[in-house]
Amino acid sequence: MADFFAANRETLDQALKALQTRDYWSPYPEVPSGRIYGETAAADGEAAFKARLGKPFELPGHPGQGGAVGKESSPYGTDLGVTYPGATTAQLVTASATAGAAWGKAPVELRVGVCLEILRRLNAASFEMAHAVSQTTGQPFMMAFQAGGPHAQDRGLEAVAYAYAEMTRTPRTARWTKPQGKQDPIVLDKEYRIVPRGVALTIGCATFPTWNSYPGIFASLATGNSVIVKPHPNAILPLALAVETGRAVLREAGFDPNVLLLAADEPGAEKTKELALDPAVKIIDFTGSNAFGTWLRENARQAQVYTEEAGVNSIVVTGTDAFKAMCSNIAFSLSLYSGQMCTAPQNVYVPRVGIETDEGHKSADEVAAGIKTAVDKLLGDPQRAAAVCGAIANPATLERVAGAASLGKVVRESAPIEGLSGARTATPVIVQVEAGEGGPYLEERFGPISFVVTAADAADAIDRAAASARSKGAITAAVYATDEGLLERAADAFAAAGVNLSCNLTGGIFVNQNAAFSDYHVTGANPAGNASLTDAAFVANRFRIAAIRRPAAA
Amino acid sequence: MADFFAANRETLDQALKALQTRDYWSPYPEVPSGRIYGETAAADGEAAFKARLGKPFELPGHPGQGGAVGKESSPYGTDLGVTYPGATTAQLVTASATAGAAWGKAPVELRVGVCLEILRRLNAASFEMAHAVSQTTGQPFMMAFQAGGPHAQDRGLEAVAYAYAEMTRTPRTARWTKPQGKQDPIVLDKEYRIVPRGVALTIGCATFPTWNSYPGIFASLATGNSVIVKPHPNAILPLALAVETGRAVLREAGFDPNVLLLAADEPGAEKTKELALDPAVKIIDFTGSNAFGTWLRENARQAQVYTEEAGVNSIVVTGTDAFKAMCSNIAFSLSLYSGQMCTAPQNVYVPRVGIETDEGHKSADEVAAGIKTAVDKLLGDPQRAAAVCGAIANPATLERVAGAASLGKVVRESAPIEGLSGARTATPVIVQVEAGEGGPYLEERFGPISFVVTAADAADAIDRAAASARSKGAITAAVYATDEGLLERAADAFAAAGVNLSCNLTGGIFVNQNAAFSDYHVTGANPAGNASLTDAAFVANRFRIAAIRRPAAA
Repeated sequence: MADFFAANRETLDQALKALQTRDYWSPYPEVPSGRIYGETAAADGEAAFKARLGKPFELPGHPGQGGAVGKESSPYGTDLGVTYPGATTAQLVTASATAGAAWGKAPVELRVGVCLEILRRLNAASFEMAHAVSQTTGQPFMMAFQAGGPHAQDRGLEAVAYAYAEMTRTPRTARWTKPQGKQDPIVLDKEYRIVPRGVALTIGCATFPTWNSYPGIFASLATGNSVIVKPHPNAILPLALAVETGRAVLREAGFDPNVLLLAADEPGAEKTKELALDPAVKIIDFTGSNAFGTWLRENARQAQVYTEEAGVNSIVVTGTDAFKAMCSNIAFSLSLYSGQMCTAPQNVYVPRVGIETDEGHKSADEVAAGIKTAVDKLLGDPQRAAAVCGAIANPATLERVAGAASLGKVVRESAPIEGLSGARTATPVIVQVEAGEGGPYLEERFGPISFVVTAADAADAIDRAAASARSKGAITAAVYATDEGLLERAADAFAAAGVNLSCNLTGGIFVNQNAAFSDYHVTGANPAGNASLTDAAFVANRFRIAAIRRPAAA
Repeated sequence: MADFFAANRETLDQALKALQTRDYWSPYPEVPSGRIYGETAAADGEAAFKARLGKPFELPGHPGQGGAVGKESSPYGTDLGVTYPGATTAQLVTASATAGAAWGKAPVELRVGVCLEILRRLNAASFEMAHAVSQTTGQPFMMAFQAGGPHAQDRGLEAVAYAYAEMTRTPRTARWTKPQGKQDPIVLDKEYRIVPRGVALTIGCATFPTWNSYPGIFASLATGNSVIVKPHPNAILPLALAVETGRAVLREAGFDPNVLLLAADEPGAEKTKELALDPAVKIIDFTGSNAFGTWLRENARQAQVYTEEAGVNSIVVTGTDAFKAMCSNIAFSLSLYSGQMCTAPQNVYVPRVGIETDEGHKSADEVAAGIKTAVDKLLGDPQRAAAVCGAIANPATLERVAGAASLGKVVRESAPIEGLSGARTATPVIVQVEAGEGGPYLEERFGPISFVVTAADAADAIDRAAASARSKGAITAAVYATDEGLLERAADAFAAAGVNLSCNLTGGIFVNQNAAFSDYHVTGANPAGNASLTDAAFVANRFRIAAIRRPAAA
């Protein structure tokens, strides 16, 4: 049998080092290049994806072979026509618990080796995954490759590395020698066993099926829990691919592949609540709405619940020495994947009196106009617009975009993207409003909808954005300032509100972007989620330690 | 200002090392010797304790100076007559949150240094603490010295060390350099800030006020949370002493002493629920009943709740090569502090056919008789009985003891301890029963009440004891066996039930004992508690990380 741990040991060691230095690092190249992935990888990946369409997805030995569920419809306009095993909750939980018994007792290195090997194979298949992610979520292809492939794999590896570190910080055995004065010491031999929680459930989302799900899946797997993956009904295929790969590696390593299961379902017939309430389910990882996150916390009381929910992200503009570069940077953040990232900014706060810049004073209206112009320029070429914006995952988002124009002074109108016929598309709508108590801008408006919010002054802008993060949740925040005092005020305010802050970003780095091994995603300290990807708290409670002690043999 | 971190650095470093090796270690000597603590320490401690009695306990600057609450009554028969500031919940929470602001922003080393210095001073005052613990809980003096003093300090230090390790595993700053092919790399400077949760509440118990409370208090303090200590109304003084010491150190370090507050109350007028439901309280550490633990989890939804609750601990006797030593060891475990330890065994399972021993075959009745005889011998001398059993903390325990005789065949009757007039005392009652579905022995019967439970055979005994741990919770388990297969079966069964297991203990080490830096107390994997003292999971989620990133200066 292959020794997956030894084969992937160097990757693990480097990951552990990266988590301590938090410098840039990744073992999974983000450039979709034939020189890296193989000259035929792009074509092979596309062919493999196309071969999946219009037929049942085979998962040998998976429960629910009789049934067939799946109604994925691409935001780009076609139905995928793929069906998946339609297992019942009882079948899934029983198979998971059964398979989990041996998995939970396996040595840490064996489990971690399996996880590392799954990730290595997922990386090799990144082109196929890119098509699956793009066609189910509407992400533009390049983004789907990166966020659905290497960057998601990074997040999975990060979780495996944290889990390994936590499980090995206590020795497997220890000898305890307690002096007894002039008498012989008391000597005990101790053994510390890692005991998993049981069955884990990962509930995926419609926009980032792999990136948001891999951390929970791999954290639970590595710590010895069996995992049921419940994808969003419109983004099953990416996670089915991951489950297929995972089951193959599990089988090769001598485990029951049902350690990793797929709970596919269809819109209107979701199995999520039934799965979440099953007494055997002890861990739930969830990405999605605040409403469902709250429901889980209130109802799935038998489980530990780790969530990434929604929030209202803000940018505060108080001054800059690079006005055009700032506007371009913000424009890209608003446009990327049509604002459907949980990290995308919604509100851009600007002081009423305007700001000082390298181009002289700019009024609040001029700041708004600058961002509008930058968006227009970025998306002026329809091909580039398609490559930046992609398609809209959920039809309800289009309705929200249409309604946004009535919420304030329209700075920029949304429009479909030319040349993407059949696809749901929408470029950003930008609306200008006055800061005030309440108001539509203080609610999350998911999609390409943003507000330029006029505040009393720079300090007021920071305070309002931070207060919004604290009360409504936020996953990202950004500030532009030339004054160190304002930067420090923003750092204090957003840290207290539990938001990670980006300062004065220009060029090729954006507030939406979040790098594994360096950036924490979500802090867990405001309503946008109760967990962070990934820190020790994300993994340390997925297992427990049970010790056995006995007198040492004389 | 004194540099408490530097002054106590070596202790911290040794603690961190001990947590990795898990060999015996303690910086706080457990022997109440004048040669260690100073020739006058014993007399000074007693005098200091006596000087506290019959008057208000002064806590300068503490809210609630107007009120005076406190009705502690010693299990040894006297009223303490001490009163404490009677602050309202609103006063406590407001003062805590106010003081917590600067504390939460203080550097990790500053906070950890304060915690280490508090522990150092608590150690120096261990004799006074011993009297306070003994007189409020009924613990015999020697035990009160050790469990209330050095061993509790060990547990506090352990929590501080884990907190320090968790807070420093992420660097304070990092430089992130992402290559961009032939272009200049993207270089960001990142700062990682530790953000505490807010106000923490520690709810103490009546039997081990310091040992069970220090971990939560010090884990929360070290991670930047302000702490309100809510003692059991009959065991306030020990925690008031700890709070007094803590406030002194905080003040010397330049902090508002209200970072550490005392929520004293009286029987029948407990403030616990009101405090637990306050929206500002974000962390709760609780030691006590399953009923109140469940109430906290269901109602204090705004807080993270860490619990040690109750369970039914078992010993399984399947065979031994040291029959007398086994019986003596079990007898001591049943008798120590009259069975009022959460780690004390309640049920001793024995195969119906008896066991093989170094003294030949012993029937189940003979095993029960052997334990009885050992208890009689241990407690035959009234002075030694007093030194082992102490007094009964709660009058309801005496009623339970009285009722136990009707629950099966009485092997040994309970009796008061001679010479402790005025004290509530009771030696162990031992009752023999047949294993079966349900039955009184499967419920926790706190105090000196134990059952010899006859099972079908050795395997049945192990399985029943493990099943009881899984369903009712258990904090400890022990097995006596000469057969390695049975030892392995027990190890598997109790690990799966989330209980730490002691094997074949004889001599000066007992199943009740649990050593910091080596043994985990409670696994968090069965109904006896959801947390473990102390592992990474106990501290890692008491703070969050908020990051700030900005382009590196060119």
